Amino acid sequence: MSTVAIVGAGYMGTVIATPLADNGHAVRLVGTHLDGEIIRCCRERGHHPRLRRALPRGVEPYGVEDLAQALEGAEVIVSGVNSLGVRWIGQALGPHLRPGQSVIAVTKGLEAAENGDLVILPDVLRGELPAGIRDQIGLAAIGGPCIAGELAGRRPTCVVFGSRDAGVAERLAEVFRTSYYSVWTTTDLVGLEVCVALKNAYTLAVGMADGLLERAGGCDEAGAYMHNLGAACFAQACTEMAHLLRITGGGRAFAYGLPGAGDLYVTCQRGRSYRLGVLLGSGHSFVEARALMPGETLEAAECVRAVGEALPKLAARGLIDGGDLPLMRALVDVIVRGRPAELPLGSFLRVQNRRAQ
Amino acid sequence: MSTVAIVGAGYMGTVIATPLADNGHAVRLVGTHLDGEIIRCCRERGHHPRLRRALPRGVEPYGVEDLAQALEGAEVIVSGVNSLGVRWIGQALGPHLRPGQSVIAVTKGLEAAENGDLVILPDVLRGELPAGIRDQIGLAAIGGPCIAGELAGRRPTCVVFGSRDAGVAERLAEVFRTSYYSVWTTTDLVGLEVCVALKNAYTLAVGMADGLLERAGGCDEAGAYMHNLGAACFAQACTEMAHLLRITGGGRAFAYGLPGAGDLYVTCQRGRSYRLGVLLGSGHSFVEARALMPGETLEAAECVRAVGEALPKLAARGLIDGGDLPLMRALVDVIVRGRPAELPLGSFLRVQNRRAQ
Repeated sequence: MSTVAIVGAGYMGTVIATPLADNGHAVRLVGTHLDGEIIRCCRERGHHPRLRRALPRGVEPYGVEDLAQALEGAEVIVSGVNSLGVRWIGQALGPHLRPGQSVIAVTKGLEAAENGDLVILPDVLRGELPAGIRDQIGLAAIGGPCIAGELAGRRPTCVVFGSRDAGVAERLAEVFRTSYYSVWTTTDLVGLEVCVALKNAYTLAVGMADGLLERAGGCDEAGAYMHNLGAACFAQACTEMAHLLRITGGGRAFAYGLPGAGDLYVTCQRGRSYRLGVLLGSGHSFVEARALMPGETLEAAECVRAVGEALPKLAARGLIDGGDLPLMRALVDVIVRGRPAELPLGSFLRVQNRRAQ
Repeated sequence: MSTVAIVGAGYMGTVIATPLADNGHAVRLVGTHLDGEIIRCCRERGHHPRLRRALPRGVEPYGVEDLAQALEGAEVIVSGVNSLGVRWIGQALGPHLRPGQSVIAVTKGLEAAENGDLVILPDVLRGELPAGIRDQIGLAAIGGPCIAGELAGRRPTCVVFGSRDAGVAERLAEVFRTSYYSVWTTTDLVGLEVCVALKNAYTLAVGMADGLLERAGGCDEAGAYMHNLGAACFAQACTEMAHLLRITGGGRAFAYGLPGAGDLYVTCQRGRSYRLGVLLGSGHSFVEARALMPGETLEAAECVRAVGEALPKLAARGLIDGGDLPLMRALVDVIVRGRPAELPLGSFLRVQNRRAQ
């Protein structure tokens, strides 16, 4: 049995405690400075207020002020923060890490480097660690379809643990794996993280299709929805993920596997990215839609922003053509330039057709 | 402007008349011997009873007894029958075909050849044509996400026209393409048709996941569904489609494009295959589920049967391993062997993992 410290007591950080606790590990759930109320509620009532569930037996809540104590003796550390907290957690963990510990992240996102390269968040986190420890810990990330509330409810879930070190991924999988939490491992950390981030962004497009239906007055007198349009966006999303995997050096097979098509499918069932897409499609500008979702972290918009920043630089370096990734470009227009939602079907096909040759 | 004869007045045959009529073509809609009542209703009231819509202006209904007259002078013939009617339509069209005519099929399905090869339906149809005309007509098929009622309602739809002859596919696309009906073309007819058929079969699995939720008593007290399980099946379906594309000689890119992931997505939104899957997952045997869907053609089950027939022969020839395609094997157990629905998540991952190496 291991000791595992989870840092970040939001949805995904907290629910990962469920398989860990069921496996008999000692689990310490550490709130960040944003999670004070959650940790108080966990301590006083053994109940997570946002998940609306009891904390699994054996999970100990810690405040951020007790971070050092929570990390003491932990073999595994889970980074449960969102993309805005990645640099913070790297800096916060840095002084406390010991050689041989593993850090596994649930964070979703990408950053654009100065030259347009898309940087995965585990590498951003790693960059914040002191040089002396950076190469002495095992770094990993979790991707694949996982609605947090379902994992908390022990519903069957399949995910992928990625690490450049196959042994690290496999050892972590052994710690987390349960009958309801199936864990596959990969050394294609880049491919995994690219899909994990992009699926949020592309979910906006599928949501926009459903929003456009709302704007068109809903289903017609004979019951016709706009699922065909959503499906065209879904396929274009997977196709563009395959393209971006190729550019970033990830394996193309993830585009049709758990991290790509699978995670995109589950994200289109519900959740923030989908709801934001519906608001955009139904006629709201991004600023308006943002205001209608107060307090929610919109990783999808952050990802579109990062890719939007990278695209002209990648084009300047000859890594993509001007007409490539038309759906992502449409999302950039909406999120970054504040334009009304549009789904340029004609351009999807031209590019797909050329690529397929 | 062209003259187009559509043979088969069910959902998909009929709705394809909408873009054709909007493009100003002369459209003749020919009912088969199963469509007598539909054609009578179209003639008397200009209304399609199953679609619950008026027939587009300029579409002329024909009875099956007037097939020869309907085909006379038609540049394009649409095969609008289902998989059970493919041999019939080949035999029925044969004597009337003239060199230079094109036949484009909306039929979904696969057949298993004696040696286990999976045969696409356009080739089955072609085999029924007289040898003298077989190579003098353009043969094509339509795939990709298209809920019939949405096309009838002129909702935006993207599809793929496939023909081994690029010129045939492109000329047909010109005839059908409208502002709301985007047509991409491919010469990978095999890949297109393999996806078109398999997506129905694999939709059963995604439906089964939702049926298992019903059997488990629905969503729990904190609102957890089983979308993670459905998404794992979705990803496994795309992964197995890629595998079967490789075996049949189709291009793997369709697994994450419109014909694969896109069409699977739309089929999971509604429709017969999904509903059959839910019934199976909720605890009904295939025989019971079949009885609960009287009068409905279950292409999904037909496809599972054909692939189930092929699998042992493909394995005997060394083209697949015994553990390959675990989700399809699970479907074969349910549909062919009458076993209760099960989704063997553990086996998905082992195989995915090996394949990704």
